Amino acid sequence: MSDEETLQGDSLKLEGKNAVLEAFRSGQTINRLFVQEHAQAKGSDPDRHIAQILREAKKNGVVVNFVKKERLDAMSDTGRHQGVIAYAAAGDYADVDDILAAAEAKGEPPFVIVLDDIEDPHNLGAIIRTAECAGAHGVIIPKRRASGLTGVVSKASAGAISLVPVARVTNLTRTIEDLKKKGLWFVCADMDGTPMYDLNLTGPIGLVIGNEGKGVSRLVKEQCDYVASIPMKGKIGSLNASVAAGVLAYEIVRQRGLT
Amino acid sequence: MSDEETLQGDSLKLEGKNAVLEAFRSGQTINRLFVQEHAQAKGSDPDRHIAQILREAKKNGVVVNFVKKERLDAMSDTGRHQGVIAYAAAGDYADVDDILAAAEAKGEPPFVIVLDDIEDPHNLGAIIRTAECAGAHGVIIPKRRASGLTGVVSKASAGAISLVPVARVTNLTRTIEDLKKKGLWFVCADMDGTPMYDLNLTGPIGLVIGNEGKGVSRLVKEQCDYVASIPMKGKIGSLNASVAAGVLAYEIVRQRGLT
Repeated sequence: MSDEETLQGDSLKLEGKNAVLEAFRSGQTINRLFVQEHAQAKGSDPDRHIAQILREAKKNGVVVNFVKKERLDAMSDTGRHQGVIAYAAAGDYADVDDILAAAEAKGEPPFVIVLDDIEDPHNLGAIIRTAECAGAHGVIIPKRRASGLTGVVSKASAGAISLVPVARVTNLTRTIEDLKKKGLWFVCADMDGTPMYDLNLTGPIGLVIGNEGKGVSRLVKEQCDYVASIPMKGKIGSLNASVAAGVLAYEIVRQRGLT
Repeated sequence: MSDEETLQGDSLKLEGKNAVLEAFRSGQTINRLFVQEHAQAKGSDPDRHIAQILREAKKNGVVVNFVKKERLDAMSDTGRHQGVIAYAAAGDYADVDDILAAAEAKGEPPFVIVLDDIEDPHNLGAIIRTAECAGAHGVIIPKRRASGLTGVVSKASAGAISLVPVARVTNLTRTIEDLKKKGLWFVCADMDGTPMYDLNLTGPIGLVIGNEGKGVSRLVKEQCDYVASIPMKGKIGSLNASVAAGVLAYEIVRQRGLT
Protein backbone atom coordinates (compact mmCIF):
# COMPACT_ATOMS: atom_id res chain seq x y z
CA MET A 1 0.00 0.00 0.00
CA SER A 2 3.10 2.23 -0.08
CA ASP A 3 2.04 3.73 -3.41
CA GLU A 4 -1.02 5.19 -1.68
CA GLU A 5 0.90 6.87 1.12
CA THR A 6 0.10 10.53 0.91
CA LEU A 7 1.59 12.00 4.06
CA GLN A 8 4.51 13.32 2.01
CA GLY A 9 6.49 15.59 4.26
CA ASP A 10 3.97 18.06 5.58
CA SER A 11 1.48 17.70 2.73
CA LEU A 12 -1.66 15.59 2.39
CA LYS A 13 -3.15 14.72 -0.99
CA LEU A 14 -6.92 15.11 -1.29
CA GLU A 15 -8.67 13.54 -4.27
CA GLY A 16 -12.19 14.09 -5.55
CA LYS A 17 -14.70 16.92 -5.40
CA ASN A 18 -16.20 16.07 -2.04
CA ALA A 19 -12.88 15.72 -0.21
CA VAL A 20 -11.52 18.99 -1.64
CA LEU A 21 -14.73 20.95 -1.08
CA GLU A 22 -15.03 19.73 2.52
CA ALA A 23 -11.39 20.71 3.10
CA PHE A 24 -12.10 24.27 1.93
CA ARG A 25 -15.31 24.48 3.92
CA SER A 26 -13.71 23.26 7.11
CA GLY A 27 -10.99 25.87 6.84
CA GLN A 28 -8.05 23.63 5.99
CA THR A 29 -5.03 25.24 4.40
CA ILE A 30 -4.82 24.15 0.75
CA ASN A 31 -1.26 24.46 -0.52
CA ARG A 32 -1.76 23.36 -4.12
CA LEU A 33 -4.86 22.79 -6.25
CA PHE A 34 -5.04 20.94 -9.59
CA VAL A 35 -8.24 21.02 -11.65
CA GLN A 36 -8.86 19.30 -14.96
CA GLU A 37 -8.91 21.64 -17.97
CA HIS A 38 -12.41 22.60 -19.11
CA ALA A 39 -13.88 20.65 -16.20
CA GLN A 40 -16.09 23.56 -15.19
CA ALA A 41 -17.49 24.14 -18.68
CA LYS A 42 -19.36 20.91 -19.24
CA GLY A 43 -22.58 22.15 -17.72
CA SER A 44 -23.61 18.81 -16.27
CA ASP A 45 -24.63 18.33 -12.67
CA PRO A 46 -21.36 17.31 -11.01
CA ASP A 47 -19.56 20.32 -12.48
CA ARG A 48 -21.39 22.62 -10.12
CA HIS A 49 -19.06 21.16 -7.53
CA ILE A 50 -16.03 22.13 -9.59
CA ALA A 51 -17.46 25.66 -9.87
CA GLN A 52 -17.87 25.74 -6.09
CA ILE A 53 -14.27 24.59 -5.64
CA LEU A 54 -13.06 27.36 -7.97
CA ARG A 55 -15.05 29.94 -5.98
CA GLU A 56 -13.59 28.65 -2.71
CA ALA A 57 -10.10 28.77 -4.22
CA LYS A 58 -10.56 32.40 -5.29
CA LYS A 59 -11.98 33.33 -1.88
CA ASN A 60 -9.02 31.74 -0.12
CA GLY A 61 -6.36 33.03 -2.50
CA VAL A 62 -5.37 29.56 -3.69
CA VAL A 63 -3.80 29.45 -7.17
CA VAL A 64 -5.61 26.98 -9.46
CA ASN A 65 -3.46 24.87 -11.76
CA PHE A 66 -5.53 23.74 -14.76
CA VAL A 67 -4.04 20.50 -16.06
CA LYS A 68 -4.87 17.73 -18.51
CA LYS A 69 -6.75 14.66 -17.32
CA GLU A 70 -3.63 12.55 -17.96
CA ARG A 71 -1.66 14.60 -15.45
CA LEU A 72 -4.34 14.10 -12.77
CA ASP A 73 -4.49 10.38 -13.57
CA ALA A 74 -0.75 10.19 -13.02
CA MET A 75 -0.97 12.12 -9.73
CA SER A 76 -3.92 10.10 -8.46
CA ASP A 77 -3.51 7.34 -5.88
CA THR A 78 -7.18 6.43 -5.77
CA GLY A 79 -7.94 6.40 -9.50
CA ARG A 80 -11.06 8.44 -8.71
CA HIS A 81 -9.91 12.06 -8.67
CA GLN A 82 -13.06 13.33 -10.48
CA GLY A 83 -11.07 16.13 -12.06
CA VAL A 84 -9.61 17.64 -8.90
CA ILE A 85 -6.64 16.99 -6.62
CA ALA A 86 -5.48 19.25 -3.81
CA TYR A 87 -2.56 19.23 -1.42
CA ALA A 88 -3.49 20.32 2.06
CA ALA A 89 -1.38 21.00 5.09
CA ALA A 90 -0.96 17.57 6.58
CA GLY A 91 -2.68 16.10 9.54
CA ASP A 92 0.25 14.37 11.18
CA TYR A 93 -0.45 11.47 13.47
CA ALA A 94 -1.41 12.72 16.89
CA ASP A 95 -0.47 11.42 20.34
CA VAL A 96 -3.07 9.80 22.54
CA ASP A 97 -2.52 12.70 24.96
CA ASP A 98 -3.56 15.16 22.20
CA ILE A 99 -6.90 13.36 22.05
CA LEU A 100 -7.46 13.68 25.80
CA ALA A 101 -6.40 17.33 25.61
CA ALA A 102 -8.97 17.95 22.85
CA ALA A 103 -11.69 16.56 25.10
CA GLU A 104 -10.52 18.67 28.03
CA ALA A 105 -10.38 21.81 25.91
CA LYS A 106 -14.02 21.27 25.00
CA GLY A 107 -14.97 20.51 28.60
CA GLU A 108 -16.37 17.13 27.54
CA PRO A 109 -15.79 13.63 28.87
CA PRO A 110 -13.38 11.91 26.44
CA PHE A 111 -14.94 9.94 23.57
CA VAL A 112 -12.34 7.91 21.70
CA ILE A 113 -12.83 5.40 18.88
CA VAL A 114 -10.29 2.55 18.90
CA LEU A 115 -9.89 0.49 15.74
CA ASP A 116 -8.60 -3.01 16.36
CA ASP A 117 -7.08 -3.73 12.98
CA ILE A 118 -9.42 -2.22 10.37
CA GLU A 119 -7.90 -3.28 7.04
CA ASP A 120 -10.10 -1.66 4.40
CA PRO A 121 -9.08 1.97 3.77
CA HIS A 122 -12.69 2.84 2.77
CA ASN A 123 -13.86 1.65 6.18
CA LEU A 124 -11.06 3.53 7.95
CA GLY A 125 -11.93 6.75 6.11
CA ALA A 126 -15.65 6.37 6.74
CA ILE A 127 -15.02 5.73 10.46
CA ILE A 128 -12.78 8.80 10.82
CA ARG A 129 -15.54 10.82 9.10
CA THR A 130 -18.07 9.33 11.53
CA ALA A 131 -15.80 10.19 14.48
CA GLU A 132 -15.72 13.81 13.33
CA CYS A 133 -19.49 13.98 12.82
CA ALA A 134 -20.30 12.26 16.13
CA GLY A 135 -18.04 14.58 18.10
CA ALA A 136 -15.46 11.95 19.08
CA HIS A 137 -12.21 13.54 20.23
CA GLY A 138 -9.94 11.17 18.37
CA VAL A 139 -9.28 7.82 16.75
CA ILE A 140 -6.64 5.31 17.81
CA ILE A 141 -5.27 2.76 15.33
CA PRO A 142 -2.54 0.14 15.67
CA LYS A 143 0.81 0.52 13.89
CA ARG A 144 0.93 -3.03 12.56
CA ARG A 145 -1.01 -4.58 9.69
CA ALA A 146 -4.02 -2.24 9.79
CA SER A 147 -4.57 0.43 7.15
CA GLY A 148 -2.77 3.75 7.71
CA LEU A 149 -3.72 7.21 6.47
CA THR A 150 -3.52 6.78 2.69
CA GLY A 151 -5.07 8.70 -0.19
CA VAL A 152 -8.03 6.32 -0.27
CA VAL A 153 -8.59 6.92 3.45
CA SER A 154 -8.36 10.67 2.97
CA LYS A 155 -10.97 10.63 0.20
CA ALA A 156 -13.31 8.29 2.08
CA SER A 157 -13.01 10.50 5.17
CA ALA A 158 -14.25 13.56 3.18
CA GLY A 159 -11.45 15.59 4.74
CA ALA A 160 -12.03 14.42 8.32
CA ILE A 161 -8.49 13.07 8.68
CA SER A 162 -7.29 16.66 8.94
CA LEU A 163 -9.92 17.49 11.56
CA VAL A 164 -9.85 14.51 13.92
CA PRO A 165 -6.63 13.56 15.75
CA VAL A 166 -5.60 10.04 14.73
CA ALA A 167 -3.03 8.37 16.99
CA ARG A 168 -1.12 5.30 15.89
CA VAL A 169 0.08 3.09 18.75
CA THR A 170 2.38 0.07 18.98
CA ASN A 171 0.38 -1.89 21.53
CA LEU A 172 -3.36 -1.41 21.57
CA THR A 173 -4.02 -3.35 24.78
CA ARG A 174 -1.41 -1.32 26.67
CA THR A 175 -2.93 1.95 25.39
CA ILE A 176 -6.37 0.80 26.55
CA GLU A 177 -4.91 -0.12 29.96
CA ASP A 178 -3.35 3.36 30.26
CA LEU A 179 -6.59 5.09 29.29
CA LYS A 180 -8.58 3.01 31.80
CA LYS A 181 -6.26 4.34 34.52
CA LYS A 182 -7.22 7.83 33.33
CA GLY A 183 -10.90 7.09 33.89
CA LEU A 184 -12.13 5.88 30.50
CA TRP A 185 -14.49 2.92 30.21
CA PHE A 186 -14.11 0.67 27.20
CA VAL A 187 -16.87 -0.96 25.24
CA CYS A 188 -16.25 -3.24 22.28
CA ALA A 189 -18.70 -4.38 19.65
CA ASP A 190 -19.37 -8.11 19.39
CA MET A 191 -22.42 -10.16 18.59
CA ASP A 192 -22.42 -11.98 21.95
CA GLY A 193 -22.64 -8.74 23.94
CA THR A 194 -25.38 -6.89 25.80
CA PRO A 195 -27.81 -5.01 23.50
CA MET A 196 -26.35 -1.51 23.21
CA TYR A 197 -29.61 0.11 24.31
CA ASP A 198 -29.28 -1.61 27.72
CA LEU A 199 -25.78 -0.30 28.44
CA ASN A 200 -24.91 3.02 30.01
CA LEU A 201 -22.64 4.54 27.36
CA THR A 202 -22.32 8.03 28.90
CA GLY A 203 -19.19 9.34 30.60
CA PRO A 204 -15.57 9.02 29.44
CA ILE A 205 -15.65 6.23 26.87
CA GLY A 206 -13.56 4.30 24.40
CA LEU A 207 -15.50 2.51 21.63
CA VAL A 208 -13.57 -0.44 20.18
CA ILE A 209 -14.39 -1.65 16.65
CA GLY A 210 -12.88 -4.95 15.50
CA ASN A 211 -11.43 -6.23 12.25
CA GLU A 212 -13.78 -6.67 9.26
CA GLY A 213 -13.51 -10.45 9.21
CA LYS A 214 -12.21 -11.49 12.62
CA GLY A 215 -13.88 -9.00 14.92
CA VAL A 216 -12.22 -7.76 18.09
CA SER A 217 -9.11 -9.73 19.08
CA ARG A 218 -9.22 -11.75 22.30
CA LEU A 219 -6.61 -9.69 24.16
CA VAL A 220 -8.33 -6.41 23.37
CA LYS A 221 -11.76 -7.81 24.24
CA GLU A 222 -10.45 -8.94 27.66
CA GLN A 223 -9.43 -5.35 28.36
CA CYS A 224 -12.92 -4.04 27.67
CA ASP A 225 -15.37 -3.27 30.47
CA TYR A 226 -18.46 -3.99 28.37
CA VAL A 227 -19.31 -5.90 25.23
CA ALA A 228 -22.11 -4.22 23.27
CA SER A 229 -24.14 -5.89 20.56
CA ILE A 230 -26.20 -4.29 17.82
CA PRO A 231 -29.53 -6.16 17.48
CA MET A 232 -29.43 -8.47 14.45
CA LYS A 233 -32.93 -9.10 13.09
CA GLY A 234 -31.98 -11.24 10.08
CA LYS A 235 -29.71 -14.15 9.24
CA ILE A 236 -26.46 -12.25 8.71
CA GLY A 237 -24.41 -11.94 11.87
CA SER A 238 -22.83 -8.52 11.50
CA LEU A 239 -22.92 -5.13 9.82
CA ASN A 240 -20.15 -3.68 7.70
CA ALA A 241 -17.46 -2.43 10.14
CA SER A 242 -17.91 1.25 9.33
CA VAL A 243 -21.70 0.97 9.58
CA ALA A 244 -21.37 -0.80 12.96
CA ALA A 245 -19.02 1.96 14.15
CA GLY A 246 -21.59 4.57 13.05
CA VAL A 247 -24.53 2.86 14.74
CA LEU A 248 -22.62 2.49 18.04
CA ALA A 249 -21.09 5.97 17.92
CA TYR A 250 -24.56 7.46 17.48
CA GLU A 251 -25.98 5.39 20.31
CA ILE A 252 -23.30 7.09 22.42
CA VAL A 253 -24.34 10.50 20.97
CA ARG A 254 -27.98 9.73 21.80
CA GLN A 255 -27.25 8.68 25.37
CA ARG A 256 -24.93 11.66 25.96
CA GLY A 257 -27.72 13.95 24.75
CA LEU A 258 -30.08 12.58 27.38
CA THR A 259 -27.83 13.40 30.36
CA MET B 1 -19.86 -1.34 -15.06
CA SER B 2 -21.08 -4.07 -17.39
CA ASP B 3 -17.99 -6.17 -16.67
CA GLU B 4 -19.13 -6.46 -13.06
CA GLU B 5 -22.63 -7.68 -13.85
CA THR B 6 -23.01 -11.01 -12.14
CA LEU B 7 -26.67 -11.85 -12.50
CA GLN B 8 -25.82 -14.27 -15.29
CA GLY B 9 -28.96 -16.20 -16.08
CA ASP B 10 -30.09 -17.61 -12.77
CA SER B 11 -26.69 -17.53 -11.08
CA LEU B 12 -25.08 -15.00 -8.79
CA LYS B 13 -21.33 -14.83 -8.31
CA LEU B 14 -20.10 -14.48 -4.72
CA GLU B 15 -16.48 -13.48 -4.13
CA GLY B 16 -14.45 -13.59 -0.95
CA LYS B 17 -14.52 -15.65 2.22
CA ASN B 18 -17.07 -13.59 4.10
CA ALA B 19 -19.61 -13.47 1.26
CA VAL B 20 -19.36 -17.21 0.61
CA LEU B 21 -19.44 -18.19 4.28
CA GLU B 22 -22.46 -15.99 4.97
CA ALA B 23 -24.21 -17.49 1.95
CA PHE B 24 -23.71 -21.01 3.36
CA ARG B 25 -24.74 -19.95 6.86
CA SER B 26 -27.90 -18.25 5.67
CA GLY B 27 -28.96 -21.37 3.78
CA GLN B 28 -28.48 -20.12 0.23
CA THR B 29 -28.16 -22.72 -2.50
CA ILE B 30 -24.58 -22.78 -3.76
CA ASN B 31 -24.44 -24.20 -7.27
CA ARG B 32 -20.68 -24.11 -7.85
CA LEU B 33 -17.73 -23.51 -5.54
CA PHE B 34 -14.13 -22.68 -6.56
CA VAL B 35 -11.36 -22.66 -3.96
CA GLN B 36 -7.71 -21.85 -4.54
CA GLU B 37 -5.40 -24.90 -4.46
CA HIS B 38 -3.58 -25.34 -1.13
CA ALA B 39 -5.48 -22.38 0.31
CA GLN B 40 -6.46 -24.33 3.39
CA ALA B 41 -2.95 -25.54 4.15
CA LYS B 42 -1.20 -22.27 4.90
CA GLY B 43 -2.03 -22.31 8.60
CA SER B 44 -2.34 -18.57 8.96
CA ASP B 45 -5.34 -16.89 10.50
CA PRO B 46 -7.56 -16.16 7.46
CA ASP B 47 -7.32 -19.77 6.31
CA ARG B 48 -9.54 -20.88 9.13
CA HIS B 49 -12.29 -19.27 7.07
CA ILE B 50 -11.39 -21.44 4.06
CA ALA B 51 -11.53 -24.48 6.35
CA GLN B 52 -14.98 -23.40 7.53
CA ILE B 53 -16.11 -22.97 3.93
CA LEU B 54 -14.87 -26.48 3.08
CA ARG B 55 -16.77 -27.91 6.09
CA GLU B 56 -19.95 -26.08 5.03
CA ALA B 57 -19.51 -27.36 1.47
CA LYS B 58 -19.18 -30.95 2.72
CA LYS B 59 -22.20 -30.57 5.00
CA ASN B 60 -24.29 -29.20 2.15
CA GLY B 61 -23.10 -31.66 -0.48
CA VAL B 62 -21.47 -28.97 -2.63
CA VAL B 63 -18.61 -30.19 -4.84
CA VAL B 64 -15.43 -28.17 -4.30
CA ASN B 65 -13.40 -27.32 -7.40
CA PHE B 66 -9.79 -26.67 -6.38
CA VAL B 67 -8.25 -24.35 -8.95
CA LYS B 68 -5.12 -22.27 -9.44
CA LYS B 69 -5.04 -18.66 -8.29
CA GLU B 70 -4.80 -17.55 -11.94
CA ARG B 71 -8.16 -19.17 -12.70
CA LEU B 72 -9.82 -17.36 -9.79
CA ASP B 73 -8.19 -14.09 -10.85
CA ALA B 74 -9.70 -14.56 -14.30
CA MET B 75 -13.14 -15.36 -12.87
CA SER B 76 -13.09 -12.47 -10.40
CA ASP B 77 -15.00 -9.25 -11.03
CA THR B 78 -13.91 -7.56 -7.84
CA GLY B 79 -10.21 -8.44 -7.89
CA ARG B 80 -10.55 -9.46 -4.24
CA HIS B 81 -11.69 -13.09 -4.28
CA GLN B 82 -9.43 -14.10 -1.35
CA GLY B 83 -9.11 -17.60 -2.78
CA VAL B 84 -12.79 -18.42 -3.06
CA ILE B 85 -15.59 -17.80 -5.55
CA ALA B 86 -19.05 -19.37 -5.43
CA TYR B 87 -22.07 -19.29 -7.71
CA ALA B 88 -25.32 -19.11 -5.79
CA ALA B 89 -28.89 -19.34 -6.97
CA ALA B 90 -29.65 -15.80 -8.01
CA GLY B 91 -31.63 -13.25 -6.15
CA ASP B 92 -33.67 -11.81 -8.98
CA TYR B 93 -35.05 -8.33 -8.61
CA ALA B 94 -38.24 -8.39 -6.60
CA ASP B 95 -41.47 -6.44 -7.04
CA VAL B 96 -42.46 -3.77 -4.56
CA ASP B 97 -45.46 -5.97 -3.74
CA ASP B 98 -43.10 -8.80 -2.72
CA ILE B 99 -41.64 -6.47 -0.11
CA LEU B 100 -45.06 -5.64 1.34
CA ALA B 101 -45.94 -9.34 1.29
CA ALA B 102 -42.75 -10.14 3.24
CA ALA B 103 -43.79 -7.67 5.92
CA GLU B 104 -47.30 -9.09 6.05
CA ALA B 105 -46.01 -12.66 6.29
CA LYS B 106 -44.00 -11.64 9.36
CA GLY B 107 -46.95 -9.76 10.85
CA GLU B 108 -44.85 -6.60 11.01
CA PRO B 109 -45.55 -3.05 9.82
CA PRO B 110 -43.60 -2.58 6.57
CA PHE B 111 -40.07 -1.19 6.84
CA VAL B 112 -38.63 -0.32 3.43
CA ILE B 113 -35.34 1.38 2.57
CA VAL B 114 -35.51 3.54 -0.56
CA LEU B 115 -32.23 4.55 -2.21
CA ASP B 116 -32.46 7.74 -4.23
CA ASP B 117 -29.57 7.19 -6.61
CA ILE B 118 -26.79 5.55 -4.59
CA GLU B 119 -23.87 5.33 -7.06
CA ASP B 120 -21.12 3.55 -5.15
CA PRO B 121 -21.56 -0.25 -5.26
CA HIS B 122 -19.79 -0.59 -1.88
CA ASN B 123 -22.40 1.69 -0.34
CA LEU B 124 -25.24 -0.17 -2.06
CA GLY B 125 -23.93 -3.52 -0.79
CA ALA B 126 -23.38 -2.23 2.74
CA ILE B 127 -26.91 -0.75 2.82
CA ILE B 128 -28.52 -4.00 1.62
CA ARG B 129 -26.54 -5.78 4.36
CA THR B 130 -27.79 -3.21 6.88
CA ALA B 131 -31.37 -3.69 5.65
CA GLU B 132 -31.07 -7.43 6.31
CA CYS B 133 -29.55 -6.94 9.76
CA ALA B 134 -32.06 -4.26 10.81
CA GLY B 135 -35.03 -6.38 9.77
CA ALA B 136 -36.13 -4.19 6.86
CA HIS B 137 -38.46 -6.03 4.49
CA GLY B 138 -36.88 -4.79 1.30
CA VAL B 139 -34.85 -2.20 -0.58
CA ILE B 140 -36.09 -0.10 -3.50
CA ILE B 141 -33.64 1.34 -6.02
CA PRO B 142 -34.20 3.36 -9.21
CA LYS B 143 -33.55 1.81 -12.63
CA ARG B 144 -31.61 4.76 -14.01
CA ARG B 145 -28.06 5.85 -13.25
CA ALA B 146 -27.78 4.30 -9.79
CA SER B 147 -25.68 1.19 -9.15
CA GLY B 148 -27.40 -2.15 -9.79
CA LEU B 149 -26.66 -5.55 -8.28
CA THR B 150 -23.09 -6.20 -9.42
CA GLY B 151 -20.37 -8.48 -8.07
CA VAL B 152 -18.95 -5.66 -5.96
CA VAL B 153 -22.41 -5.10 -4.46
CA SER B 154 -22.81 -8.80 -3.76
CA LYS B 155 -19.47 -8.98 -1.93
CA ALA B 156 -20.09 -5.77 0.04
CA SER B 157 -23.51 -7.08 1.04
CA ALA B 158 -21.95 -10.23 2.59
CA GLY B 159 -24.60 -12.31 0.86
CA ALA B 160 -27.56 -10.12 1.87
CA ILE B 161 -28.62 -9.47 -1.73
CA SER B 162 -29.95 -13.02 -1.83
CA LEU B 163 -31.83 -12.55 1.46
CA VAL B 164 -33.44 -9.13 1.13
CA PRO B 165 -35.87 -8.41 -1.74
CA VAL B 166 -34.47 -5.60 -3.89
CA ALA B 167 -36.98 -3.94 -6.22
CA ARG B 168 -35.87 -1.75 -9.10
CA VAL B 169 -38.41 0.86 -10.17
CA THR B 170 -38.68 3.29 -13.07
CA ASN B 171 -40.10 6.23 -11.16
CA LEU B 172 -39.15 6.57 -7.52
CA THR B 173 -41.57 9.38 -6.70
CA ARG B 174 -44.51 7.44 -8.16
CA THR B 175 -43.54 4.35 -6.14
CA ILE B 176 -43.41 6.45 -2.99
CA GLU B 177 -46.83 7.93 -3.83
CA ASP B 178 -48.28 4.42 -4.27
CA LEU B 179 -46.81 3.20 -1.00
CA LYS B 180 -48.15 6.24 0.86
CA LYS B 181 -51.63 5.24 -0.35
CA LYS B 182 -50.96 1.84 1.23
CA GLY B 183 -50.30 3.45 4.60
CA LEU B 184 -46.53 3.93 4.67
CA TRP B 185 -44.97 7.12 6.02
CA PHE B 186 -41.78 8.33 4.38
CA VAL B 187 -38.83 9.91 6.09
CA CYS B 188 -35.78 11.12 4.22
CA ALA B 189 -32.39 12.00 5.60
CA ASP B 190 -31.18 15.56 5.17
CA MET B 191 -29.13 17.92 7.29
CA ASP B 192 -31.89 20.53 7.55
CA GLY B 193 -34.36 18.07 9.08
CA THR B 194 -35.70 17.40 12.57
CA PRO B 195 -33.25 15.52 14.83
CA MET B 196 -34.13 11.85 14.34
CA TYR B 197 -34.55 11.29 18.08
CA ASP B 198 -37.46 13.76 18.08
CA LEU B 199 -39.43 12.00 15.31
CA ASN B 200 -41.83 9.11 15.75
CA LEU B 201 -40.32 6.50 13.45
CA THR B 202 -42.55 3.58 14.43
CA GLY B 203 -45.31 2.14 12.24
CA PRO B 204 -45.18 1.39 8.49
CA ILE B 205 -42.19 3.34 7.25
CA GLY B 206 -40.06 4.07 4.21
CA LEU B 207 -36.56 5.39 4.92
CA VAL B 208 -35.14 7.39 1.99
CA ILE B 209 -31.36 7.73 1.63
CA GLY B 210 -30.04 10.21 -0.93
CA ASN B 211 -27.15 10.23 -3.38
CA GLU B 212 -23.60 10.33 -1.97
CA GLY B 213 -22.84 13.83 -3.24
CA LYS B 214 -26.16 15.46 -3.98
CA GLY B 215 -28.37 14.08 -1.21
CA VAL B 216 -32.07 13.43 -1.71
CA SER B 217 -33.47 14.89 -4.93
CA ARG B 218 -36.06 17.68 -4.66
CA LEU B 219 -38.96 15.71 -6.13
CA VAL B 220 -38.40 12.78 -3.79
CA LYS B 221 -37.95 15.05 -0.78
CA GLU B 222 -41.28 16.76 -1.52
CA GLN B 223 -42.96 13.35 -1.36
CA CYS B 224 -41.58 12.64 2.11
CA ASP B 225 -43.68 13.19 5.25
CA TYR B 226 -40.69 13.94 7.46
CA VAL B 227 -37.12 15.05 7.02
CA ALA B 228 -34.82 13.53 9.65
CA SER B 229 -31.37 14.78 10.51
CA ILE B 230 -28.54 12.98 12.23
CA PRO B 231 -26.89 15.33 14.75
CA MET B 232 -23.60 16.66 13.36
CA LYS B 233 -21.20 17.61 16.15
CA GLY B 234 -18.22 18.61 14.00
CA LYS B 235 -17.47 20.66 10.88
CA ILE B 236 -18.29 18.05 8.25
CA GLY B 237 -21.92 18.18 7.14
CA SER B 238 -22.71 14.53 6.50
CA LEU B 239 -21.80 10.93 7.13
CA ASN B 240 -20.92 8.39 4.44
CA ALA B 241 -24.22 7.34 2.81
CA SER B 242 -24.10 3.74 4.06
CA VAL B 243 -23.20 4.86 7.58
CA ALA B 244 -26.09 7.37 7.56
CA ALA B 245 -28.44 4.61 6.38
CA GLY B 246 -27.23 2.40 9.25
CA VAL B 247 -27.60 5.06 11.91
CA LEU B 248 -31.16 5.90 10.75
CA ALA B 249 -32.20 2.28 10.24
CA TYR B 250 -31.12 1.49 13.79
CA GLU B 251 -32.94 4.50 15.20
CA ILE B 252 -36.02 2.90 13.63
CA VAL B 253 -35.06 -0.46 15.20
CA ARG B 254 -34.64 1.22 18.59
CA GLN B 255 -37.99 3.03 18.42
CA ARG B 256 -39.80 -0.10 17.18
CA GLY B 257 -38.34 -1.99 20.14
CA LEU B 258 -39.85 0.49 22.58
CA THR B 259 -43.43 0.06 21.38
